[in-house]
Amino acid sequence: MRTGIATVCLSGTLREKLQACAVAGFDGIEIFEQDLVTSPLSPEDVRKMAADLGLSLDLYQPFRDFDSVPEELLAANLRRAEAKFRLMSRLGMDTVLVCSNVGTASIDDDDLRAAQLSRLAGLAADHGVKVAYEALAWGRYVNDYEHAHRLVQTVDHPNLGTCLDSFHILSRDWDTAPIESFNPDKIFFVQVADAPKLSLDVLSWSRHYRVFPGEGQFDLAKFLGHVVRAGYSGPVSLEVFNDVFRQSDVERTAVDAMRSLIWLEEQSAKWLDANPTAAGPDGRSAGPAPGTRRRYPMELATLPQVAEPAGFNFAEVRAADTAALETLLGQLGFAFNGRHRTKNVQLWTMGHARVIINEESAGAESSGTATAPAISAVGFDVDSPVIAAARAQQLKAPAVPRKSQADEEIFQGFAAPDSTEIFLCQGSPDGTAAWTREFGEGLELPAAGRAGAPGAVIDHVNLAQPWQHFDEAVLFYTSALALEPQPYAEVASPTGLVRSQVMLTRDRGVRLVLNLAPLLQQEGAAAGPGQRRSYQEHIAFAVDDLVATARAAQARGLDFLRIPENYYEDLEARFDLEPAFLATLRELNLLYDRDADGEFLHFYTATVGSVFFEMVERRGAYDGYGAPNAPVRHAVQYDHLHQLKPTP
Amino acid sequence: MRTGIATVCLSGTLREKLQACAVAGFDGIEIFEQDLVTSPLSPEDVRKMAADLGLSLDLYQPFRDFDSVPEELLAANLRRAEAKFRLMSRLGMDTVLVCSNVGTASIDDDDLRAAQLSRLAGLAADHGVKVAYEALAWGRYVNDYEHAHRLVQTVDHPNLGTCLDSFHILSRDWDTAPIESFNPDKIFFVQVADAPKLSLDVLSWSRHYRVFPGEGQFDLAKFLGHVVRAGYSGPVSLEVFNDVFRQSDVERTAVDAMRSLIWLEEQSAKWLDANPTAAGPDGRSAGPAPGTRRRYPMELATLPQVAEPAGFNFAEVRAADTAALETLLGQLGFAFNGRHRTKNVQLWTMGHARVIINEESAGAESSGTATAPAISAVGFDVDSPVIAAARAQQLKAPAVPRKSQADEEIFQGFAAPDSTEIFLCQGSPDGTAAWTREFGEGLELPAAGRAGAPGAVIDHVNLAQPWQHFDEAVLFYTSALALEPQPYAEVASPTGLVRSQVMLTRDRGVRLVLNLAPLLQQEGAAAGPGQRRSYQEHIAFAVDDLVATARAAQARGLDFLRIPENYYEDLEARFDLEPAFLATLRELNLLYDRDADGEFLHFYTATVGSVFFEMVERRGAYDGYGAPNAPVRHAVQYDHLHQLKPTP
Repeated sequence: MRTGIATVCLSGTLREKLQACAVAGFDGIEIFEQDLVTSPLSPEDVRKMAADLGLSLDLYQPFRDFDSVPEELLAANLRRAEAKFRLMSRLGMDTVLVCSNVGTASIDDDDLRAAQLSRLAGLAADHGVKVAYEALAWGRYVNDYEHAHRLVQTVDHPNLGTCLDSFHILSRDWDTAPIESFNPDKIFFVQVADAPKLSLDVLSWSRHYRVFPGEGQFDLAKFLGHVVRAGYSGPVSLEVFNDVFRQSDVERTAVDAMRSLIWLEEQSAKWLDANPTAAGPDGRSAGPAPGTRRRYPMELATLPQVAEPAGFNFAEVRAADTAALETLLGQLGFAFNGRHRTKNVQLWTMGHARVIINEESAGAESSGTATAPAISAVGFDVDSPVIAAARAQQLKAPAVPRKSQADEEIFQGFAAPDSTEIFLCQGSPDGTAAWTREFGEGLELPAAGRAGAPGAVIDHVNLAQPWQHFDEAVLFYTSALALEPQPYAEVASPTGLVRSQVMLTRDRGVRLVLNLAPLLQQEGAAAGPGQRRSYQEHIAFAVDDLVATARAAQARGLDFLRIPENYYEDLEARFDLEPAFLATLRELNLLYDRDADGEFLHFYTATVGSVFFEMVERRGAYDGYGAPNAPVRHAVQYDHLHQLKPTP
Repeated sequence: MRTGIATVCLSGTLREKLQACAVAGFDGIEIFEQDLVTSPLSPEDVRKMAADLGLSLDLYQPFRDFDSVPEELLAANLRRAEAKFRLMSRLGMDTVLVCSNVGTASIDDDDLRAAQLSRLAGLAADHGVKVAYEALAWGRYVNDYEHAHRLVQTVDHPNLGTCLDSFHILSRDWDTAPIESFNPDKIFFVQVADAPKLSLDVLSWSRHYRVFPGEGQFDLAKFLGHVVRAGYSGPVSLEVFNDVFRQSDVERTAVDAMRSLIWLEEQSAKWLDANPTAAGPDGRSAGPAPGTRRRYPMELATLPQVAEPAGFNFAEVRAADTAALETLLGQLGFAFNGRHRTKNVQLWTMGHARVIINEESAGAESSGTATAPAISAVGFDVDSPVIAAARAQQLKAPAVPRKSQADEEIFQGFAAPDSTEIFLCQGSPDGTAAWTREFGEGLELPAAGRAGAPGAVIDHVNLAQPWQHFDEAVLFYTSALALEPQPYAEVASPTGLVRSQVMLTRDRGVRLVLNLAPLLQQEGAAAGPGQRRSYQEHIAFAVDDLVATARAAQARGLDFLRIPENYYEDLEARFDLEPAFLATLRELNLLYDRDADGEFLHFYTATVGSVFFEMVERRGAYDGYGAPNAPVRHAVQYDHLHQLKPTP
């Protein structure tokens, strides 16, 4: 698949955009007119620079408001077009995007439109240019891709074809299956964009909220599958108008964009395999024989295949001063499993829940600042760490080197967009981890299980995301780790709404929650050197008997997050709870939720640095996270933080 | 008018919200349930705190999903209601908001609904509680305020009335005139919220985008006018769900909120005066006699009245090192009018355009940082500075003290939300300013007009706004300065979309442009001490002959913002310009725009600190700002900034 991207997707100048696209590995680009008009580079400069960078200049765009106009306006439009065609020849470009008229269309007549497009195609031919005509979703008269294609067929000129843009098609819920029957010679260009499903008017939605494939809710695998089946083999090019990408670091966004195409390519190949074509005219299936893939003009590369991770292998917290963390874990019922034989890390376990405390020194030393406790890494159980790592690498995840002694387990690690380190570990059917043997030499064994709940596991990990990398994070975890994004929730806190995006495996072995803190809080967090972020994140552990766990923790002196009495009175009003049960919740500062599928009990610890812990018990098939209780948690944590602050 | 505000409008804890509301001067508040549930304050604590702060507790809210349900759910709902009624008696509150059912309504039957509301009213009566029933705009069966009111009439119970919420009424475009015929005893509560007109679904629109009155596009003066005419005299209370206000400083937001009610009160009084009621049943006008105001149970206070400002009196730029500014103004054709006789400021003029250079020292000294040039103040010509200042003060604009010698003109000044100082100056019919006599003793006079264009005036001033104070700024300039917000534009820049909000007087004597820079750029600007912000703002001067002005500036060696050749080629393609004219534009780095009303020529200087200047010529009735050229300006400025940065 030939990959492309429109310059309008990225921040910076035309020069910066071209360089970033080349570094990210794109085959070609679309030049968005405004990027050229505002550039000090001459068309000849751009042509040379693209050639030097190995980028083909695939599409000049957009040419607006051409068709469905009276004759005198048509003359002006043709004059305008000719100027652009001349410019394109200086750029060495041969395809221009002409979108259906929005602003000046006044005559709704397909014959007239066809005649006008025919004249444009003729003029284009004189200049060696091909016109790719696209139906904008909000075009005045032409807003349906099949309509645009019918016009192309009517004109039947070698220099007129159609441009298929997934946004304009999927935002209107048009059926994409008819694409398969298009003559591939008449499909001049294909643009892809994803988007969250919004109820906004389609123009605003398009101009501000498009995202890269895998970051939204469109079925792009199917769309591209139909395009492939039609026999198209040209560029598949991203055209994404997004308020955040427009301001983010250009090189980073280009990599995010490239990752989305690599992932889409794989998803489309899978869709093609899963959806063989219907029986052909001769009655035999036109689909491929089992185990073989039908060949199309467009070759779709695939990635190393991985199953979804089976569970969390470990979570790691980094801190300069680890005392508070050690106390907290001990009180929760975790057992100290000793220090690593060569690294400055401790292992704490409860059942199969493993927490590594990384006694960071190197980073803190060089920056001169001590690091407050923060979640630094998460390990996932996968079938094959090597294959999973190869997949992540092909998806352009930045590798994280971890030194290892010769006889120690090597962890394949990658940096997630929020800079958490993601490790791919060998899972084992019994939930144990071989690498734990590297810990605790000289300790009385087995340390695990001595205290706390033997059935404990990591239930979910909640990571705070910088707002400008949120969409990138969703795609990263989707593509590299095979997690599935769920509809997000919004939770009120004293400092604003917190967005909570759950990413799941189908069997719920992994629940990762991406939290988007309010902007002002993110700005205020102003991470100092060595301090990644100061807004809160947490690790939640599931146990079989939360009340017993809480009682034991209470006996060990745990500092529970104190739940206000008003909460329990509200709980009483909302649910018909047994008085004795309610009294227990109250006594132990437990929170409670219930839905049609089951019940949820949980409690929180106080926060150390930017980390706190949660203990949960899921009863029945409860699948949530106690979202109605989150505002209580936020308010109490805010009160704590506030009390710690010196009065001005 | 009794003023109120719902706690959900504000950030922070319940304690912080109450305190901020008292400081801002509200009469009462609505307690949003979640704020109480998450609070460590007991209901008795809240009651005492409110009493101590002089705040009445006007409304407990919301009670959801009560009506239109089967009998067994109704029983549970009544049980839930009774728990809340008991809580209300502990709070000492007597009115609860019950909103029409969204989630659990399953029976669409007005008789059943009336019967259920009647039972609720009876239960409420037992607890001394009044139920204010509100039609949510997205209620399952009841989503029209007249429908809700019909139910209230049917039930006809002294403990059941209606709550009118402007958002739920105006978002659905319901006619508000029928409110006038409502029995005022049945209107238990009135909530007001403004909103920008969005095409979003009404639930998302309501939950995220409400703003305070005057910050959106609803006709709230009319809405409240009808409410006043109905004879309602209870609280007028803000209920504004807004993602930004929820995270902003609580005290500041409370003042912004209070300002919006003071302004709304005045606007409603004006609406009532301008819209006398139709003739009464006896054929005589029911409106007030000319010059008198009809009295209603709700008294509407008014503010000192001011006409819109006639023009800009001056603009002030502050800098530690003023050399670059002086050079730039001199090259543009400004004449140096000397120094002030007692202050460290210089006056530069061209025609009636006056620029003060403030040689800041005090602030810079204490912070230890030199201040880069930045726009620090804007003066407006008003009829009566004293009356205008009294108005601003009543609108809670923070006054800015400026020391003055006994015989010098005293400027009344206020700090705008972006911290620009706004001065109210005595306008004069001939466009001169008396205070200029305090400058230039010993200089050859008249200095003004010696160079440059004698007809020059300040055309517009463009101020960068911090994102979290943007809505507040719109209301500030609307209410305190009588400027009118126009629909905003969005302009592409290499660092993201810039929102441009024009605020105008009707005769265009004042054009103020509020710019909202992309968030990441705002974060990056990270104002150091003494440096308010580093993103760019500018002052534009209008002249009669821009080409002549540009030539003269060129001769004086002005550093024009260099416009790329690609821009002129695009201009040629877009407009049929005379070759000679185009050559002149090219030669002088002039930008050009044209619309149906006229033409616009303009050029920009290089930037010093965070300020640059623009010179414009308006031909015909052109009323814009050359928006299509803004991306070029942004791109070239970005390139400059980039070249100045050291390569990493």
